[in-house]
Amino acid sequence: MVPIRWEDHALSLLDQTLLPARVEWNTYRDYRPVIGDIKRLAVRGAPLIGVAAAYAYVLAAWEFTGHTDFAARMTQAKEALWASRPTAVNLFWALERMDATRLRLGDDPAGLEAEAQAIQAENIAMNAAMGRFGAEVVPKGARVLTHCNAGALATDGIGTALGVVRAAWEQGKVRMVYADETRPLLQGSRLTAYELHADGIPVTVIADNMAAALMRKGLIDMAIVGCDRMAANGDFANKTGTYAVAVACHHHGIPFYTALPTSTMDLSLKDGSGIPIEERGAEELRFVGDTQTAPLEAAVYNPAFDVTPHELLTGIITEKGVILPPFEEKLKALFPG
Amino acid sequence: MVPIRWEDHALSLLDQTLLPARVEWNTYRDYRPVIGDIKRLAVRGAPLIGVAAAYAYVLAAWEFTGHTDFAARMTQAKEALWASRPTAVNLFWALERMDATRLRLGDDPAGLEAEAQAIQAENIAMNAAMGRFGAEVVPKGARVLTHCNAGALATDGIGTALGVVRAAWEQGKVRMVYADETRPLLQGSRLTAYELHADGIPVTVIADNMAAALMRKGLIDMAIVGCDRMAANGDFANKTGTYAVAVACHHHGIPFYTALPTSTMDLSLKDGSGIPIEERGAEELRFVGDTQTAPLEAAVYNPAFDVTPHELLTGIITEKGVILPPFEEKLKALFPG
Repeated sequence: MVPIRWEDHALSLLDQTLLPARVEWNTYRDYRPVIGDIKRLAVRGAPLIGVAAAYAYVLAAWEFTGHTDFAARMTQAKEALWASRPTAVNLFWALERMDATRLRLGDDPAGLEAEAQAIQAENIAMNAAMGRFGAEVVPKGARVLTHCNAGALATDGIGTALGVVRAAWEQGKVRMVYADETRPLLQGSRLTAYELHADGIPVTVIADNMAAALMRKGLIDMAIVGCDRMAANGDFANKTGTYAVAVACHHHGIPFYTALPTSTMDLSLKDGSGIPIEERGAEELRFVGDTQTAPLEAAVYNPAFDVTPHELLTGIITEKGVILPPFEEKLKALFPG
Repeated sequence: MVPIRWEDHALSLLDQTLLPARVEWNTYRDYRPVIGDIKRLAVRGAPLIGVAAAYAYVLAAWEFTGHTDFAARMTQAKEALWASRPTAVNLFWALERMDATRLRLGDDPAGLEAEAQAIQAENIAMNAAMGRFGAEVVPKGARVLTHCNAGALATDGIGTALGVVRAAWEQGKVRMVYADETRPLLQGSRLTAYELHADGIPVTVIADNMAAALMRKGLIDMAIVGCDRMAANGDFANKTGTYAVAVACHHHGIPFYTALPTSTMDLSLKDGSGIPIEERGAEELRFVGDTQTAPLEAAVYNPAFDVTPHELLTGIITEKGVILPPFEEKLKALFPG
């Protein structure tokens, strides 16, 4: 399952807000609508946002090449992309990398295009490596809980958390994946169930609030989730509800992992308290489609992410290997120099 | 807020599936459609199901009065009502009480009507008593988490869990109520937020998966939920997701209470493992209104209730007082003789 395509100097994005009912692609030669697609979660998932932003940067480069104020316009485009969403650090990581490439190459859209393609290719390769390492911690016959969508649709390639699931499935280790539906935007039931079912991997959708009860019944062997930003001590932000999964795993003695590429790590933050958490509109809890689900007058609190403290993590699955506690020194060692 | 009316030998039920968008009542002189309303959750909440079933029994009595096979027909009506939903014990409690009254009075619909009215009046009085006792355990300035709807709409009167909230609010103790939206049928966002807002009590809707993160932020001082059936040791079934709230409260050292009338207790069961748990249709997780929220082909697990072990309970709020652990002997003492 591929959520992004770059062909003929154009960026095509699968509109993930319409899944699973409709499969529709939007093709852009202008970077500006990509910002809207990131904001409204048509394209989402920390690694994929990074790839999409890199290609949007390339669209800007093709638009502005030859202008006398190329650098200024590229800075403007970068800043507009930068402001699209606050939590996933891959967005900033990819834009910084594209900007550094531009400073090195100058007005060279083809060179920037090659860099974005490198980011995409590395991302796919990192997923494969994470899958390989992560599959080792999956027990035979595993019933795996996951939250939100950290799959092909979130990352391109095989996915981070779902990349581990896919690799373990290939090895015959996965008996069932339980997908938290993941309110409010239902990335678990709409996207995770969709892409796993498409691959023939057994998946059962549950409401988020059922996961703990499944654990008590002995139906969950491990949980694996994605990550939007990890701080230097291993604290990490991920889709709202991840922390509740971590607490329930801890209570039941169930292993709890996050899978992420090093591009999702932000060691400039010493712990999770520094991660900016996006709050989204109340309408996400007041409506599903046209159906009103809450009184319009009642207050709504809608953070898109929460922070899970590193103490609740059994291990961190990266493209360089699985890291077990204590995390801090080992995370630092991933970034030599 | 009143969800049920008995007037002129007719039973009127507020259709709770349509709230908050629409306020519609259905009026019945036939007991049979009441069964459908219980099944589809148009009338729901353990105590209210008991009251509705008692009045449905009365409708059957008015229909069958004078028939030579009155007793057989009443048994048939009782059995049809009995089979409507399996978990909330008030249904069975109310039907047994109506049946015992019929055995005593014979073919006497007016006498049975008086009994149903007594059940309703006692129910309202029990809520008031629970509120009075429960308010004592609510600290001043409390931010209270609740799950599902254990309010006026679930019980008639002021509610069980929300009866405690209302009584504490009257005493100036409640700063904020956080209402878990309560997937899949959203009784928290649709009903709890609706009835608290109507009463001017500050309420904030959250997704179920956010409650644990709010606790970590120090935003929750206590949780109070309702109950569908409690076993002799204090284990209790309540709306799916209650157990996750209990686990999160335990992890954060936050008091966790359930409020229930003694008619919700089933001391014939020694622990929660004997409580039958209703599983509902997959479509509740595949659609919200007309919007598809999961692939039609993916499996869905949809238990309507879960069981919380008594170890996670800080206290049990009843119409006879607040019971603190150990529970078993004290619960037994509530039923003298």
